[in-house]
Amino acid sequence: MTTPVHIVKFGSGILDDPVKREAALRQMQASAHNIILVHGGGARAGELSARLGLETVKHDGRRVTDADTLEVVVMVYAGLINKQLVAELQALGLDALGLSGADMDILRARRRPPQPIDFGFVGDVERVNAGALEILLRRGVTPVICALTHDGAGQLLNTNADTIAAEIAAALAPQRPCCLSYCFELPGVLHDLGDVGSLIGELDAAEYARLKQEGRIHRGMLPKLDNAFAAHAAGVNSVNICAYEALHDALNGERVGTTIV
Amino acid sequence: MTTPVHIVKFGSGILDDPVKREAALRQMQASAHNIILVHGGGARAGELSARLGLETVKHDGRRVTDADTLEVVVMVYAGLINKQLVAELQALGLDALGLSGADMDILRARRRPPQPIDFGFVGDVERVNAGALEILLRRGVTPVICALTHDGAGQLLNTNADTIAAEIAAALAPQRPCCLSYCFELPGVLHDLGDVGSLIGELDAAEYARLKQEGRIHRGMLPKLDNAFAAHAAGVNSVNICAYEALHDALNGERVGTTIV
Repeated sequence: MTTPVHIVKFGSGILDDPVKREAALRQMQASAHNIILVHGGGARAGELSARLGLETVKHDGRRVTDADTLEVVVMVYAGLINKQLVAELQALGLDALGLSGADMDILRARRRPPQPIDFGFVGDVERVNAGALEILLRRGVTPVICALTHDGAGQLLNTNADTIAAEIAAALAPQRPCCLSYCFELPGVLHDLGDVGSLIGELDAAEYARLKQEGRIHRGMLPKLDNAFAAHAAGVNSVNICAYEALHDALNGERVGTTIV
Repeated sequence: MTTPVHIVKFGSGILDDPVKREAALRQMQASAHNIILVHGGGARAGELSARLGLETVKHDGRRVTDADTLEVVVMVYAGLINKQLVAELQALGLDALGLSGADMDILRARRRPPQPIDFGFVGDVERVNAGALEILLRRGVTPVICALTHDGAGQLLNTNADTIAAEIAAALAPQRPCCLSYCFELPGVLHDLGDVGSLIGELDAAEYARLKQEGRIHRGMLPKLDNAFAAHAAGVNSVNICAYEALHDALNGERVGTTIV
Protein backbone atom coordinates (compact mmCIF):
# COMPACT_ATOMS: atom_id res chain seq x y z
CA MET A 1 0.00 0.00 0.00
CA THR A 2 1.97 3.03 -1.20
CA THR A 3 -0.76 5.60 -1.79
CA PRO A 4 0.40 8.76 -0.04
CA VAL A 5 -1.44 10.12 2.97
CA HIS A 6 -1.70 13.81 3.76
CA ILE A 7 -2.05 14.95 7.35
CA VAL A 8 -3.62 18.41 7.36
CA LYS A 9 -3.94 20.62 10.43
CA PHE A 10 -6.43 23.51 10.38
CA GLY A 11 -5.87 26.54 12.57
CA SER A 12 -8.60 28.24 14.61
CA GLY A 13 -8.92 31.07 12.09
CA ILE A 14 -10.18 28.55 9.51
CA LEU A 15 -12.33 26.56 11.91
CA ASP A 16 -14.21 29.57 13.26
CA ASP A 17 -15.03 31.30 9.97
CA PRO A 18 -17.73 29.48 7.95
CA VAL A 19 -16.53 30.97 4.62
CA LYS A 20 -12.88 30.08 5.14
CA ARG A 21 -13.83 26.69 6.54
CA GLU A 22 -15.92 25.82 3.52
CA ALA A 23 -13.16 27.00 1.19
CA ALA A 24 -10.63 24.82 3.00
CA LEU A 25 -12.91 21.76 3.02
CA ARG A 26 -13.57 22.20 -0.71
CA GLN A 27 -9.81 22.10 -1.30
CA MET A 28 -9.83 18.73 0.45
CA GLN A 29 -12.81 17.58 -1.62
CA ALA A 30 -11.08 18.49 -4.88
CA SER A 31 -8.13 16.28 -4.01
CA ALA A 32 -8.15 12.56 -4.70
CA HIS A 33 -5.73 11.89 -1.86
CA ASN A 34 -6.10 10.14 1.45
CA ILE A 35 -6.36 12.87 4.04
CA ILE A 36 -6.34 12.90 7.83
CA LEU A 37 -7.65 16.21 9.16
CA VAL A 38 -6.45 17.38 12.60
CA HIS A 39 -7.92 20.30 14.54
CA GLY A 40 -8.03 21.96 17.93
CA GLY A 41 -10.38 24.80 18.72
CA GLY A 42 -8.74 26.88 21.41
CA ALA A 43 -10.52 30.09 20.46
CA ARG A 44 -14.01 28.60 20.79
CA ALA A 45 -12.99 26.79 23.99
CA GLY A 46 -11.82 30.10 25.43
CA GLU A 47 -15.16 31.68 24.51
CA LEU A 48 -17.17 28.91 26.17
CA SER A 49 -14.97 29.03 29.28
CA ALA A 50 -15.63 32.77 29.53
CA ARG A 51 -19.41 32.28 29.13
CA LEU A 52 -19.29 29.69 31.92
CA GLY A 53 -17.29 32.04 34.14
CA LEU A 54 -14.20 29.82 34.12
CA GLU A 55 -10.84 31.51 34.35
CA THR A 56 -8.39 30.67 31.57
CA VAL A 57 -4.90 30.17 32.98
CA LYS A 58 -1.93 29.93 30.62
CA HIS A 59 1.76 29.26 31.16
CA ASP A 60 3.99 30.26 28.28
CA GLY A 61 1.04 30.45 25.91
CA ARG A 62 -0.22 26.99 26.85
CA ARG A 63 -3.57 26.47 28.50
CA VAL A 64 -3.72 24.93 31.97
CA THR A 65 -6.45 22.28 31.84
CA ASP A 66 -8.21 21.82 35.15
CA ALA A 67 -11.22 19.46 35.41
CA ASP A 68 -13.75 22.12 34.35
CA THR A 69 -11.58 23.26 31.45
CA LEU A 70 -11.17 19.66 30.32
CA GLU A 71 -14.96 19.36 30.11
CA VAL A 72 -15.04 22.53 28.01
CA VAL A 73 -12.37 21.37 25.55
CA VAL A 74 -13.95 17.93 25.24
CA MET A 75 -17.30 19.58 24.43
CA VAL A 76 -15.84 22.08 21.98
CA TYR A 77 -13.18 19.95 20.26
CA ALA A 78 -14.87 16.52 20.11
CA GLY A 79 -18.43 17.90 19.97
CA LEU A 80 -19.01 21.29 18.41
CA ILE A 81 -16.07 21.60 16.03
CA ASN A 82 -15.46 17.95 15.20
CA LYS A 83 -19.07 17.09 14.34
CA GLN A 84 -19.55 20.27 12.34
CA LEU A 85 -16.48 19.40 10.23
CA VAL A 86 -17.69 15.82 9.80
CA ALA A 87 -21.20 16.87 8.73
CA GLU A 88 -19.78 19.42 6.27
CA LEU A 89 -17.32 16.91 4.79
CA GLN A 90 -20.14 14.36 4.40
CA ALA A 91 -22.11 17.02 2.51
CA LEU A 92 -19.11 17.35 0.17
CA GLY A 93 -19.09 13.59 -0.43
CA LEU A 94 -16.13 12.68 1.78
CA ASP A 95 -16.80 9.80 4.18
CA ALA A 96 -15.58 11.60 7.29
CA LEU A 97 -15.26 10.01 10.72
CA GLY A 98 -14.59 12.17 13.77
CA LEU A 99 -12.22 10.81 16.37
CA SER A 100 -10.71 11.73 19.68
CA GLY A 101 -7.60 9.89 20.74
CA ALA A 102 -9.75 7.51 22.81
CA ASP A 103 -11.80 6.35 19.80
CA MET A 104 -10.33 3.11 18.52
CA ASP A 105 -7.45 3.89 20.90
CA ILE A 106 -5.95 6.13 18.22
CA LEU A 107 -3.79 8.26 20.53
CA ARG A 108 -2.51 7.03 23.86
CA ALA A 109 -0.85 9.66 26.04
CA ARG A 110 0.75 10.06 29.43
CA ARG A 111 -0.40 12.87 31.68
CA ARG A 112 2.35 15.47 31.84
CA PRO A 113 4.19 15.41 35.20
CA PRO A 114 3.14 18.30 37.49
CA GLN A 115 6.75 19.53 37.84
CA PRO A 116 7.95 22.17 37.08
CA ILE A 117 4.52 23.43 35.99
CA ASP A 118 1.25 21.60 36.57
CA PHE A 119 -0.66 21.86 33.30
CA GLY A 120 -3.49 19.73 34.68
CA PHE A 121 -5.16 17.25 32.32
CA VAL A 122 -2.63 17.63 29.52
CA GLY A 123 -1.17 14.60 27.81
CA ASP A 124 2.01 13.91 25.88
CA VAL A 125 1.51 11.38 23.08
CA GLU A 126 3.04 7.99 23.80
CA ARG A 127 1.64 5.89 20.96
CA VAL A 128 -0.24 6.41 17.71
CA ASN A 129 -2.41 3.47 16.65
CA ALA A 130 -1.22 3.51 13.04
CA GLY A 131 -2.90 0.16 12.37
CA ALA A 132 -6.37 1.51 13.17
CA LEU A 133 -5.78 4.59 10.99
CA GLU A 134 -4.60 2.34 8.14
CA ILE A 135 -7.81 0.30 8.36
CA LEU A 136 -9.90 3.46 8.07
CA LEU A 137 -7.86 4.90 5.19
CA ARG A 138 -8.11 1.63 3.27
CA ARG A 139 -11.91 1.80 3.61
CA GLY A 140 -11.92 5.26 2.06
CA VAL A 141 -12.71 6.97 5.35
CA THR A 142 -11.39 10.47 6.07
CA PRO A 143 -10.43 10.60 9.77
CA VAL A 144 -11.07 13.97 11.46
CA ILE A 145 -9.04 13.97 14.66
CA CYS A 146 -9.46 16.48 17.47
CA ALA A 147 -6.86 17.56 20.00
CA LEU A 148 -7.73 15.02 22.69
CA THR A 149 -5.87 11.91 23.79
CA HIS A 150 -6.48 9.38 26.56
CA ASP A 151 -4.34 7.55 29.08
CA GLY A 152 -5.85 4.10 28.60
CA ALA A 153 -7.25 4.18 32.13
CA GLY A 154 -10.39 6.17 31.34
CA GLN A 155 -8.94 9.68 31.50
CA LEU A 156 -9.20 12.03 28.52
CA LEU A 157 -6.32 14.49 28.14
CA ASN A 158 -5.86 17.77 26.30
CA THR A 159 -3.03 17.63 23.75
CA ASN A 160 -1.76 20.26 21.33
CA ALA A 161 -3.20 19.73 17.85
CA ASP A 162 0.05 20.70 16.08
CA THR A 163 1.83 17.99 18.05
CA ILE A 164 -0.87 15.41 17.28
CA ALA A 165 -0.56 16.14 13.55
CA ALA A 166 3.22 15.72 13.69
CA GLU A 167 3.00 12.52 15.75
CA ILE A 168 0.48 10.96 13.35
CA ALA A 169 2.58 11.87 10.33
CA ALA A 170 5.69 10.42 11.96
CA ALA A 171 3.83 7.21 12.86
CA LEU A 172 2.47 6.67 9.34
CA ALA A 173 5.69 7.64 7.52
CA PRO A 174 7.29 4.16 7.75
CA GLN A 175 4.23 2.68 6.00
CA ARG A 176 3.64 5.05 3.13
CA PRO A 177 4.60 8.40 1.63
CA CYS A 178 3.45 10.97 4.12
CA CYS A 179 2.94 14.72 3.84
CA LEU A 180 2.13 17.15 6.64
CA SER A 181 0.56 20.58 6.05
CA TYR A 182 -0.13 23.15 8.73
CA CYS A 183 -2.85 25.33 7.18
CA PHE A 184 -3.72 28.75 8.48
CA GLU A 185 -4.55 32.24 7.27
CA LEU A 186 -1.09 33.49 6.31
CA PRO A 187 0.94 32.39 3.28
CA GLY A 188 3.50 30.64 5.53
CA VAL A 189 6.32 31.69 7.84
CA LEU A 190 7.07 35.36 7.24
CA HIS A 191 10.27 37.34 7.81
CA ASP A 192 8.04 40.27 8.71
CA LEU A 193 4.60 39.49 10.14
CA GLY A 194 3.26 42.72 8.66
CA ASP A 195 4.38 41.88 5.13
CA VAL A 196 2.81 38.86 3.42
CA GLY A 197 5.40 39.31 0.66
CA SER A 198 8.18 38.35 3.09
CA LEU A 199 7.44 34.63 2.88
CA ILE A 200 10.26 32.26 3.76
CA GLY A 201 9.95 29.65 1.00
CA GLU A 202 12.30 27.13 2.57
CA LEU A 203 13.45 26.79 6.14
CA ASP A 204 16.18 24.51 7.41
CA ALA A 205 17.10 23.76 11.01
CA ALA A 206 20.14 26.05 11.08
CA GLU A 207 18.22 29.03 9.71
CA TYR A 208 15.34 28.30 12.12
CA ALA A 209 17.76 28.26 15.07
CA ARG A 210 19.23 31.58 13.92
CA LEU A 211 15.84 33.26 13.46
CA LYS A 212 14.68 31.96 16.83
CA GLN A 213 17.78 33.28 18.54
CA GLU A 214 17.25 36.68 16.94
CA GLY A 215 13.66 36.66 18.18
CA ARG A 216 12.41 36.96 14.61
CA ILE A 217 9.91 34.07 14.71
CA HIS A 218 6.48 34.98 16.03
CA ARG A 219 5.91 33.34 19.42
CA GLY A 220 2.71 31.59 18.23
CA MET A 221 4.63 29.99 15.39
CA LEU A 222 7.26 28.31 17.60
CA PRO A 223 5.31 25.17 18.65
CA LYS A 224 4.14 24.68 15.05
CA LEU A 225 7.70 24.93 13.72
CA ASP A 226 9.16 22.76 16.47
CA ASN A 227 6.60 20.09 15.55
CA ALA A 228 7.23 20.59 11.85
CA PHE A 229 10.97 20.00 12.29
CA ALA A 230 10.32 16.98 14.51
CA ALA A 231 8.09 15.42 11.82
CA HIS A 232 10.67 16.17 9.14
CA ALA A 233 13.40 14.57 11.25
CA ALA A 234 11.14 11.52 11.78
CA GLY A 235 11.05 10.86 8.04
CA VAL A 236 7.85 12.60 6.93
CA ASN A 237 8.40 13.20 3.21
CA SER A 238 7.06 16.71 2.97
CA VAL A 239 6.28 19.23 5.70
CA ASN A 240 4.94 22.68 4.99
CA ILE A 241 3.14 25.60 6.53
CA CYS A 242 0.76 27.25 4.13
CA ALA A 243 -2.39 29.25 3.57
CA TYR A 244 -5.63 27.27 3.42
CA GLU A 245 -6.17 28.66 -0.09
CA ALA A 246 -3.00 26.82 -1.17
CA LEU A 247 -4.04 23.48 0.36
CA HIS A 248 -5.11 21.94 -2.95
CA ASP A 249 -1.71 22.73 -4.48
CA ALA A 250 0.01 21.34 -1.39
CA LEU A 251 -2.04 18.14 -1.67
CA ASN A 252 -0.93 17.86 -5.30
CA GLY A 253 2.70 17.96 -4.23
CA GLU A 254 3.42 21.52 -5.29
CA ARG A 255 5.74 23.65 -3.21
CA VAL A 256 3.60 26.20 -1.42
CA GLY A 257 4.06 28.29 1.69
CA THR A 258 7.08 27.50 3.81
CA THR A 259 8.65 24.09 3.19
CA ILE A 260 10.79 22.50 5.88
CA VAL A 261 14.05 21.25 4.39
CA MET B 1 -22.22 -13.71 9.63
CA THR B 2 -24.74 -14.84 12.19
CA THR B 3 -23.16 -13.65 15.45
CA PRO B 4 -25.90 -11.79 17.28
CA VAL B 5 -25.65 -8.08 17.89
CA HIS B 6 -27.08 -6.35 20.96
CA ILE B 7 -28.21 -2.75 20.77
CA VAL B 8 -28.16 -1.26 24.25
CA LYS B 9 -29.59 2.13 25.16
CA PHE B 10 -28.49 3.76 28.44
CA GLY B 11 -30.78 6.25 30.17
CA SER B 12 -29.58 9.54 31.68
CA GLY B 13 -29.71 8.12 35.22
CA ILE B 14 -26.92 5.70 34.29
CA LEU B 15 -24.91 8.17 32.22
CA ASP B 16 -24.79 10.84 34.91
CA ASP B 17 -23.84 8.66 37.90
CA PRO B 18 -20.20 7.47 37.78
CA VAL B 19 -20.90 4.44 39.98
CA LYS B 20 -23.92 3.24 37.99
CA ARG B 21 -22.17 4.02 34.71
CA GLU B 22 -19.15 1.94 35.66
CA ALA B 23 -21.40 -0.92 36.78
CA ALA B 24 -23.27 -0.82 33.48
CA LEU B 25 -20.09 -0.67 31.39
CA ARG B 26 -18.66 -3.63 33.34
CA GLN B 27 -21.74 -5.65 32.42
CA MET B 28 -20.91 -4.92 28.79
CA GLN B 29 -17.27 -5.89 29.35
CA ALA B 30 -18.24 -9.23 30.88
CA SER B 31 -20.23 -10.14 27.79
CA ALA B 32 -18.56 -11.64 24.76
CA HIS B 33 -21.22 -10.24 22.45
CA ASN B 34 -21.14 -7.59 19.77
CA ILE B 35 -22.70 -4.52 21.32
CA ILE B 36 -23.77 -1.16 19.94
CA LEU B 37 -24.27 1.35 22.75
CA VAL B 38 -26.72 4.22 22.21
CA HIS B 39 -27.08 7.25 24.48
CA GLY B 40 -28.58 10.72 24.75
CA GLY B 41 -27.82 13.01 27.64
CA GLY B 42 -30.81 15.30 28.05
CA ALA B 43 -30.22 15.94 31.74
CA ARG B 44 -26.66 17.21 31.23
CA ALA B 45 -27.74 19.21 28.17
CA GLY B 46 -30.45 20.87 30.27
CA GLU B 47 -27.88 21.74 32.92
CA LEU B 48 -25.49 23.30 30.43
CA SER B 49 -28.33 25.24 28.77
CA ALA B 50 -29.26 26.65 32.18
CA ARG B 51 -25.64 27.64 32.94
CA LEU B 52 -25.52 29.43 29.58
CA GLY B 53 -28.79 31.20 30.29
CA LEU B 54 -30.66 29.44 27.48
CA GLU B 55 -34.32 28.76 27.96
CA THR B 56 -35.39 25.11 27.59
CA VAL B 57 -38.65 24.90 25.65
CA LYS B 58 -40.54 21.61 25.48
CA HIS B 59 -43.65 20.49 23.66
CA ASP B 60 -45.22 17.32 24.99
CA GLY B 61 -42.05 16.42 26.88
CA ARG B 62 -39.87 16.86 23.79
CA ARG B 63 -37.17 19.51 23.65
CA VAL B 64 -37.39 22.27 21.03
CA THR B 65 -33.93 22.55 19.49
CA ASP B 66 -33.11 26.06 18.33
CA ALA B 67 -29.62 26.87 16.98
CA ASP B 68 -28.14 27.57 20.43
CA THR B 69 -29.69 24.42 21.91
CA LEU B 70 -28.34 22.37 19.01
CA GLU B 71 -24.83 23.58 19.87
CA VAL B 72 -25.42 22.53 23.47
CA VAL B 73 -26.64 19.02 22.61
CA VAL B 74 -23.82 18.52 20.12
CA MET B 75 -21.30 19.50 22.79
CA VAL B 76 -22.88 17.37 25.51
CA TYR B 77 -23.92 14.28 23.52
CA ALA B 78 -21.05 13.96 21.00
CA GLY B 79 -18.43 15.56 23.25
CA LEU B 80 -18.80 15.24 26.98
CA ILE B 81 -20.84 12.06 27.33
CA ASN B 82 -19.74 10.17 24.23
CA LYS B 83 -15.99 10.61 24.78
CA GLN B 84 -16.27 9.79 28.47
CA LEU B 85 -18.03 6.50 27.63
CA VAL B 86 -15.46 5.73 24.94
CA ALA B 87 -12.49 6.40 27.24
CA GLU B 88 -14.05 4.30 30.01
CA LEU B 89 -14.82 1.40 27.64
CA GLN B 90 -11.26 1.51 26.30
CA ALA B 91 -10.03 1.27 29.90
CA LEU B 92 -12.15 -1.91 30.22
CA GLY B 93 -10.54 -3.36 27.11
CA LEU B 94 -13.41 -2.78 24.68
CA ASP B 95 -12.36 -1.10 21.43
CA ALA B 96 -15.00 1.63 21.53
CA LEU B 97 -15.61 4.17 18.78
CA GLY B 98 -17.87 7.15 19.40
CA LEU B 99 -20.16 8.19 16.57
CA SER B 100 -22.74 10.79 15.76
CA GLY B 101 -25.06 10.06 12.86
CA ALA B 102 -22.81 12.15 10.60
CA ASP B 103 -19.75 9.99 11.24
CA MET B 104 -19.42 7.47 8.41
CA ASP B 105 -22.91 8.66 7.44
CA ILE B 106 -24.36 6.25 10.01
CA LEU B 107 -27.73 7.98 10.46
CA ARG B 108 -29.29 10.14 7.79
CA ALA B 109 -32.37 12.09 8.85
CA ARG B 110 -34.87 14.58 7.53
CA ARG B 111 -35.57 17.72 9.50
CA ARG B 112 -39.03 17.44 11.00
CA PRO B 113 -41.56 19.69 9.21
CA PRO B 114 -42.38 22.85 11.22
CA GLN B 115 -46.12 22.06 11.19
CA PRO B 116 -48.01 21.59 13.48
CA ILE B 117 -45.16 22.26 15.95
CA ASP B 118 -41.74 23.59 15.00
CA PHE B 119 -39.27 21.49 16.96
CA GLY B 120 -36.34 23.28 15.34
CA PHE B 121 -33.25 21.23 14.47
CA VAL B 122 -34.85 17.87 15.14
CA GLY B 123 -34.49 15.01 12.69
CA ASP B 124 -36.48 11.89 11.90
CA VAL B 125 -34.29 8.97 10.82
CA GLU B 126 -34.51 8.18 7.12
CA ARG B 127 -31.71 5.68 6.68
CA VAL B 128 -29.35 3.65 8.87
CA ASN B 129 -26.01 2.82 7.25
CA ALA B 130 -26.06 -0.84 8.27
CA GLY B 131 -23.10 -1.61 6.00
CA ALA B 132 -20.81 0.78 7.87
CA LEU B 133 -21.92 -0.62 11.24
CA GLU B 134 -21.30 -4.16 9.99
CA ILE B 135 -17.74 -3.23 8.97
CA LEU B 136 -17.05 -1.89 12.46
CA LEU B 137 -18.61 -4.88 14.23
CA ARG B 138 -16.58 -7.31 12.11
CA ARG B 139 -13.40 -5.49 13.16
CA GLY B 140 -14.31 -6.00 16.81
CA VAL B 141 -15.19 -2.35 17.33
CA THR B 142 -17.91 -1.35 19.83
CA PRO B 143 -19.82 1.61 18.33
CA VAL B 144 -21.03 4.17 20.87
CA ILE B 145 -23.70 6.22 19.13
CA CYS B 146 -25.07 9.51 20.43
CA ALA B 147 -28.48 11.01 19.75
CA LEU B 148 -27.47 13.11 16.74
CA THR B 149 -28.21 12.59 13.07
CA HIS B 150 -27.45 14.67 9.97
CA ASP B 151 -29.32 15.64 6.83
CA GLY B 152 -26.51 14.94 4.36
CA ALA B 153 -26.30 18.64 3.51
CA GLY B 154 -24.08 19.65 6.44
CA GLN B 155 -26.76 20.08 9.10
CA LEU B 156 -26.63 18.13 12.35
CA LEU B 157 -30.01 17.28 13.88
CA ASN B 158 -31.17 16.28 17.35
CA THR B 159 -32.89 12.88 17.38
CA ASN B 160 -34.37 10.88 20.25
CA ALA B 161 -31.93 8.22 21.46
CA ASP B 162 -34.68 5.62 22.07
CA THR B 163 -35.73 6.00 18.45
CA ILE B 164 -32.16 5.73 17.19
CA ALA B 165 -31.67 2.49 19.13
CA ALA B 166 -34.88 1.04 17.65
CA GLU B 167 -34.01 2.16 14.11
CA ILE B 168 -30.54 0.63 14.31
CA ALA B 169 -31.90 -2.65 15.65
CA ALA B 170 -34.51 -2.78 12.89
CA ALA B 171 -31.89 -2.04 10.22
CA LEU B 172 -29.51 -4.77 11.42
CA ALA B 173 -32.21 -7.40 12.05
CA PRO B 174 -32.33 -8.67 8.44
CA GLN B 175 -28.59 -9.42 8.60
CA ARG B 176 -28.18 -11.14 11.93
CA PRO B 177 -29.93 -12.02 15.19
CA CYS B 178 -30.59 -8.74 16.87
CA CYS B 179 -31.54 -7.85 20.45
CA LEU B 180 -32.53 -4.46 21.82
CA SER B 181 -32.32 -3.52 25.51
CA TYR B 182 -33.44 -0.23 27.01
CA CYS B 183 -31.47 -0.01 30.26
CA PHE B 184 -32.38 2.31 33.05
CA GLU B 185 -32.67 2.44 36.82
CA LEU B 186 -35.94 0.55 37.32
CA PRO B 187 -36.46 -3.21 36.91
CA GLY B 188 -38.65 -2.65 33.83
CA VAL B 189 -42.18 -1.41 33.14
CA LEU B 190 -44.08 -1.30 36.42
CA HIS B 191 -47.82 -1.53 37.09
CA ASP B 192 -47.23 0.85 39.98
CA LEU B 193 -44.30 3.25 39.70
CA GLY B 194 -43.96 3.26 43.49
CA ASP B 195 -43.65 -0.51 43.74
CA VAL B 196 -40.63 -2.17 42.12
CA GLY B 197 -42.32 -5.52 42.79
CA SER B 198 -45.08 -4.69 40.29
CA LEU B 199 -42.92 -5.52 37.27
CA ILE B 200 -44.73 -6.41 34.06
CA GLY B 201 -42.70 -9.39 32.84
CA GLU B 202 -44.25 -9.54 29.38
CA LEU B 203 -46.08 -6.90 27.46
CA ASP B 204 -47.95 -7.37 24.21
CA ALA B 205 -49.45 -4.73 21.96
CA ALA B 206 -53.05 -5.28 23.13
CA GLU B 207 -52.14 -5.00 26.80
CA TYR B 208 -49.98 -1.94 26.08
CA ALA B 209 -52.90 -0.25 24.28
CA ARG B 210 -55.16 -1.02 27.23
CA LEU B 211 -52.70 0.30 29.85
CA LYS B 212 -52.10 3.42 27.78
CA GLN B 213 -55.81 4.09 27.47
CA GLU B 214 -56.23 3.71 31.20
CA GLY B 215 -53.37 6.20 31.73
CA ARG B 216 -51.44 3.58 33.67
CA ILE B 217 -48.16 3.92 31.76
CA HIS B 218 -45.86 6.64 33.02
CA ARG B 219 -45.64 9.45 30.47
CA GLY B 220 -41.83 9.21 30.23
CA MET B 221 -42.12 5.53 29.33
CA LEU B 222 -44.37 6.05 26.30
CA PRO B 223 -41.72 6.97 23.67
CA LYS B 224 -39.53 4.10 24.88
CA LEU B 225 -42.39 1.62 24.60
CA ASP B 226 -43.59 2.95 21.25
CA ASN B 227 -40.05 2.47 19.94
CA ALA B 228 -39.78 -0.95 21.57
CA PHE B 229 -42.96 -2.15 19.84
CA ALA B 230 -41.83 -0.67 16.52
CA ALA B 231 -38.54 -2.58 16.73
CA HIS B 232 -40.35 -5.79 17.67
CA ALA B 233 -42.72 -5.38 14.72
CA ALA B 234 -39.71 -4.79 12.44
CA GLY B 235 -38.32 -8.23 13.25
CA VAL B 236 -35.89 -7.54 16.08
CA ASN B 237 -35.58 -10.91 17.83
CA SER B 238 -35.70 -9.73 21.40
CA VAL B 239 -36.73 -6.39 22.86
CA ASN B 240 -36.67 -5.65 26.56
CA ILE B 241 -36.66 -2.86 29.08
CA CYS B 242 -34.53 -3.66 32.09
CA ALA B 243 -32.38 -2.43 34.95
CA TYR B 244 -28.73 -1.79 34.13
CA GLU B 245 -27.84 -4.36 36.81
CA ALA B 246 -29.60 -6.99 34.69
CA LEU B 247 -27.83 -6.08 31.46
CA HIS B 248 -25.36 -8.96 31.62
CA ASP B 249 -28.23 -11.45 31.92
CA ALA B 250 -30.06 -9.71 29.09
CA LEU B 251 -26.94 -9.95 26.90
CA ASN B 252 -26.82 -13.68 27.69
CA GLY B 253 -30.34 -14.14 26.39
CA GLU B 254 -32.06 -14.47 29.74
CA ARG B 255 -35.50 -12.99 30.24
CA VAL B 256 -35.09 -9.94 32.41
CA GLY B 257 -37.20 -6.85 33.01
CA THR B 258 -40.12 -6.34 30.68
CA THR B 259 -40.00 -8.33 27.47
CA ILE B 260 -42.01 -7.15 24.46
CA VAL B 261 -43.98 -10.07 23.00
